[in-house]
Amino acid sequence: MTADTTASTRRWTLDEVHALCDRYRTWGKWGPDDELGTLNYLTPEMVANAATLVRQGKVISCALPYDGNGPQNGWGGRVNPLHFMLQDGGDATIGAQEHMARLRYADDAIYMPLQCGTQWDALSHVFYDGKMYNGYGQEHVSSTGADKCAIHLATEKVVGRGVLLDIPRFRGVPWLEPGDGIGSDELAACAEKQGVTVGRGDFVLVRTGHIAKCRAEGAWGDYAAGDAPGLNLDSTHWICGNEIAGVATDTWGMEVRPNELEEIFQPVHIVLLVNVGLLIGEIFDLEKLADDCAEDGVYEFMFVAGPLPFTKAVGSPLNPLAIK
Amino acid sequence: MTADTTASTRRWTLDEVHALCDRYRTWGKWGPDDELGTLNYLTPEMVANAATLVRQGKVISCALPYDGNGPQNGWGGRVNPLHFMLQDGGDATIGAQEHMARLRYADDAIYMPLQCGTQWDALSHVFYDGKMYNGYGQEHVSSTGADKCAIHLATEKVVGRGVLLDIPRFRGVPWLEPGDGIGSDELAACAEKQGVTVGRGDFVLVRTGHIAKCRAEGAWGDYAAGDAPGLNLDSTHWICGNEIAGVATDTWGMEVRPNELEEIFQPVHIVLLVNVGLLIGEIFDLEKLADDCAEDGVYEFMFVAGPLPFTKAVGSPLNPLAIK
Amino acid sequence: MTADTTASTRRWTLDEVHALCDRYRTWGKWGPDDELGTLNYLTPEMVANAATLVRQGKVISCALPYDGNGPQNGWGGRVNPLHFMLQDGGDATIGAQEHMARLRYADDAIYMPLQCGTQWDALSHVFYDGKMYNGYGQEHVSSTGADKCAIHLATEKVVGRGVLLDIPRFRGVPWLEPGDGIGSDELAACAEKQGVTVGRGDFVLVRTGHIAKCRAEGAWGDYAAGDAPGLNLDSTHWICGNEIAGVATDTWGMEVRPNELEEIFQPVHIVLLVNVGLLIGEIFDLEKLADDCAEDGVYEFMFVAGPLPFTKAVGSPLNPLAIK
Amino acid sequence: MTADTTASTRRWTLDEVHALCDRYRTWGKWGPDDELGTLNYLTPEMVANAATLVRQGKVISCALPYDGNGPQNGWGGRVNPLHFMLQDGGDATIGAQEHMARLRYADDAIYMPLQCGTQWDALSHVFYDGKMYNGYGQEHVSSTGADKCAIHLATEKVVGRGVLLDIPRFRGVPWLEPGDGIGSDELAACAEKQGVTVGRGDFVLVRTGHIAKCRAEGAWGDYAAGDAPGLNLDSTHWICGNEIAGVATDTWGMEVRPNELEEIFQPVHIVLLVNVGLLIGEIFDLEKLADDCAEDGVYEFMFVAGPLPFTKAVGSPLNPLAIK
Repeated sequence: MTADTTASTRRWTLDEVHALCDRYRTWGKWGPDDELGTLNYLTPEMVANAATLVRQGKVISCALPYDGNGPQNGWGGRVNPLHFMLQDGGDATIGAQEHMARLRYADDAIYMPLQCGTQWDALSHVFYDGKMYNGYGQEHVSSTGADKCAIHLATEKVVGRGVLLDIPRFRGVPWLEPGDGIGSDELAACAEKQGVTVGRGDFVLVRTGHIAKCRAEGAWGDYAAGDAPGLNLDSTHWICGNEIAGVATDTWGMEVRPNELEEIFQPVHIVLLVNVGLLIGEIFDLEKLADDCAEDGVYEFMFVAGPLPFTKAVGSPLNPLAIK
Repeated sequence: MTADTTASTRRWTLDEVHALCDRYRTWGKWGPDDELGTLNYLTPEMVANAATLVRQGKVISCALPYDGNGPQNGWGGRVNPLHFMLQDGGDATIGAQEHMARLRYADDAIYMPLQCGTQWDALSHVFYDGKMYNGYGQEHVSSTGADKCAIHLATEKVVGRGVLLDIPRFRGVPWLEPGDGIGSDELAACAEKQGVTVGRGDFVLVRTGHIAKCRAEGAWGDYAAGDAPGLNLDSTHWICGNEIAGVATDTWGMEVRPNELEEIFQPVHIVLLVNVGLLIGEIFDLEKLADDCAEDGVYEFMFVAGPLPFTKAVGSPLNPLAIK
Repeated sequence: MTADTTASTRRWTLDEVHALCDRYRTWGKWGPDDELGTLNYLTPEMVANAATLVRQGKVISCALPYDGNGPQNGWGGRVNPLHFMLQDGGDATIGAQEHMARLRYADDAIYMPLQCGTQWDALSHVFYDGKMYNGYGQEHVSSTGADKCAIHLATEKVVGRGVLLDIPRFRGVPWLEPGDGIGSDELAACAEKQGVTVGRGDFVLVRTGHIAKCRAEGAWGDYAAGDAPGLNLDSTHWICGNEIAGVATDTWGMEVRPNELEEIFQPVHIVLLVNVGLLIGEIFDLEKLADDCAEDGVYEFMFVAGPLPFTKAVGSPLNPLAIK
Repeated sequence: MTADTTASTRRWTLDEVHALCDRYRTWGKWGPDDELGTLNYLTPEMVANAATLVRQGKVISCALPYDGNGPQNGWGGRVNPLHFMLQDGGDATIGAQEHMARLRYADDAIYMPLQCGTQWDALSHVFYDGKMYNGYGQEHVSSTGADKCAIHLATEKVVGRGVLLDIPRFRGVPWLEPGDGIGSDELAACAEKQGVTVGRGDFVLVRTGHIAKCRAEGAWGDYAAGDAPGLNLDSTHWICGNEIAGVATDTWGMEVRPNELEEIFQPVHIVLLVNVGLLIGEIFDLEKLADDCAEDGVYEFMFVAGPLPFTKAVGSPLNPLAIK
């Protein structure tokens, strides 16, 4: 089966990609003023149903620690978080807090690119032909932030049913290699083998094992902005056909790299983020969750993964929780 | 009733506060190496039971937007978040992204004190007599962060049953005034009037209306680091007696100010954070949740409010979600 | 005399300002590729001659301290500097530096808008009709900085003769009030009264006393981005006629505010920075220098005020030194 | 000659270093409240005399550009500068500045460790046995900065005579290798060969060629915090005997590494910064200056190198200018 499925990764022409965009474009589907895209698939009933998946009381985070040991290398200004102590136990000890009556304290601050670690892309993160999702012009995103499709709009929208698709376990390998693409047939086959269905409004977490590979090798290497396993252009058929609300992977850029054509950098983003309006997550650490799912055989869970309300931001770090 | 309840706010002596600390100190209760405090009360069963509270599929965030309009005034280095665009639609428009094939994008970054907005205090946030929760010395918190009781330890621990106690509605006022303290009797009476019980492992959100007051006045004023309504020292009896897992308020510092004695700055923190090891949340925006609870009469919900895994941090912003 | 001189501040029409721009535009004067503007006036002979003005061995800085007590209020993202200790004496004391053999240390970092305090504007700081100095399009300044007319080009170019014009002492007032404009006649008369000449390649420091006023009042008020005394449009005749290399004032924006017409924000910048290519300095603290000049009667000095080589930056903090 | 001079680099015992500290300690020499150390050697006469060295009108900066291509690798939190555009030409182009009348602009900000590039160490940068220069305790440096011996005190103090000692040219090599130490005899011999004297109050710039080596190799490698050529412990005899006001090198840490004993990290700092109170500069780019001196044979110059007044900071970037 693996031979067939990975064969879906191939060279594409620009025209083919444009046809794919045309086919799955949702602009206007939820009105001309919509800024949420596929999060519109989610209904209160789905939220309530998702909660019924909580049976064991297990809580598993998919967030990579935010610290100086993260995967970033400075590309495009993306550095790892810088953590500052504004006050600490040293200050308390040397008498630098004597102006406060008896209480002593520590306080801290962070500088971080919002997409340096586990993250959601806002729909305003990517443009094509001058436009983002729903046809909003890129001029809506200036140095003061995004006037349209900012991430803070999703603050209360990312609670629902989550499904993990563990591709390495499906293939019987420890991890996928850079360049390994994942297509529609493989996503469907993996779900079937895992005994889990996928449908409208679901959040799908696709594990490639790329983080496991880096850990095994003891170094991030070119994890950030380099070649990677991931979803290929063919995968968009399955994703759009199932009307899922969001997808996240354990790679820096969700999609297979090298890209399947040279004429577009990150073409799957152009299809899914710009045209479909799909919520995309990256650098999700799916290792612990995958181990747990393999152990109890349960690949569905309540998924609570709201971004933080960074006003007008084009992405957000978060603590995505799978609750089983 | 209000007269009796607010009367619990009074002057305390240092000895009385120390006796309170002695009475409720939990150090060692969960072992000498514990760093979680009252989060230990929470069991998988409680998580699973909390999920059964999700009936309508409503998701309500208690996070105040993180942006330049926040409440901070620079006190102690706490400024409001600074949002930077690393790339934006302007760059795409002026041709500054021509090195990328067709895709255009926006990217951003944040600088923020970790406790400048909606936040959890880590147990390493406050020291007394040189020690934090469980007796760890303040020397565990240096300029490189907290080696003990850091906030990242709670990443998967803050999922459970949440209860809102809406004190202004209980009192029949739009909001409490600075100096208005909330004690044990009032917490109990409010819960009773609302028809909700509180027990072990619960997360209790106490609304004072301080954010509503600032909104009504159109300015934050001295919301941050100034006088405020809040929990008084007497409230610790109810809090500890009920063995709750965490408490959060809509004020900058959780407790009533001016403090009830001059000898200790923020004495309720000394009791609850240092001695009890209670998770404390601040600047939670409870307005929308309170309106919703008043409308449907349901004051309990699934509460999913994990901090972000900022490694070795002493606090964390978050998106706390009440799911009903 | 004051009546006549301040009368030069008046309402201007857009056409008049455009005519002024046309009259003094230097684009092409130093070649089509020039990025230095009036700094070209400066010759090695002028540098050598300036050194002969050093007779007493006095060194006076015109830099306002860079710290949290600065004049900024957040307008346009301009906050006061944020100073972070990466390591400090507290760390040394609590044993957090035991990994180093015996040496203990402190280290620090800064975040600051480059124009939050004493500063030079780069010629890429302002655009008009899509262009900066010498006709370069504004598209040369993207989120990765200025490809043309950046401040780092001036690193070795700001050494020469400096002249202080102390307008309040000339007028016999402690300071000028917001709205008080300074025109060509007054600049000439002030120089004459002070017994100092001004000529090609000089750096002219014009004191309005605005910082003195704020100190006397004990607060910055709306010093930053508010109304201010300063150079008016008429002053450009004297400035351009004398072919000076640069001008700096003790106000946030160099020019008188409210502006002399509503159709252009900061019109003197449009004339001098965009069209003339003049180096403009702001928030120079001229109080100590003015006191010294009043005392010894010497209003000329060697002026060493290179910006720091922040690559591709549009402004720079600095330590401008008057050496007498 | 080279054989003899480099032989001065040797293993030292802890007792020998302590004896060296005792021998050259200046604590109390300029009073118990002094915070300037060897900058006290400088007199107004020296400043005036230094100005007479300006003959050709040449201005040469010794500052390395402050940008993302700098030498830092994150060690101890020292990253290269992060440059942010708060506004830029893209904003002007997409209409994001329409609220301003006609003027369009760019504005920017920087985050940088104060010692990430060309820098002066403040006397509060290093402690030994709990003390900094003049016996001030390390508790004077907390998370809010240095109450004693901060860099802003030197704002008007670093103007005088500068002398370049070009060790690689003296040795006839393109650059010194890591581990190559420079001692007193070699400093004296180099000055003699260059035909330049060194005396009280001078600022001495010692070139090792380490930056030239990195440029030749096309990479910084472990320039920052790694092994390096530099001044050895023996050099302190010449430095202290001559009563110079400051010394700067083109390496990250001024002194030869590996250190000459294992018991103290950076022992030359302990002697010179802590005990002597000498101003120390690091990462000065001396390549252009050295080429110029070799060409005109003039190794002395006016040296204007004031730090920026970062209040209470323990170091400062700057634009050090040699004026000939």
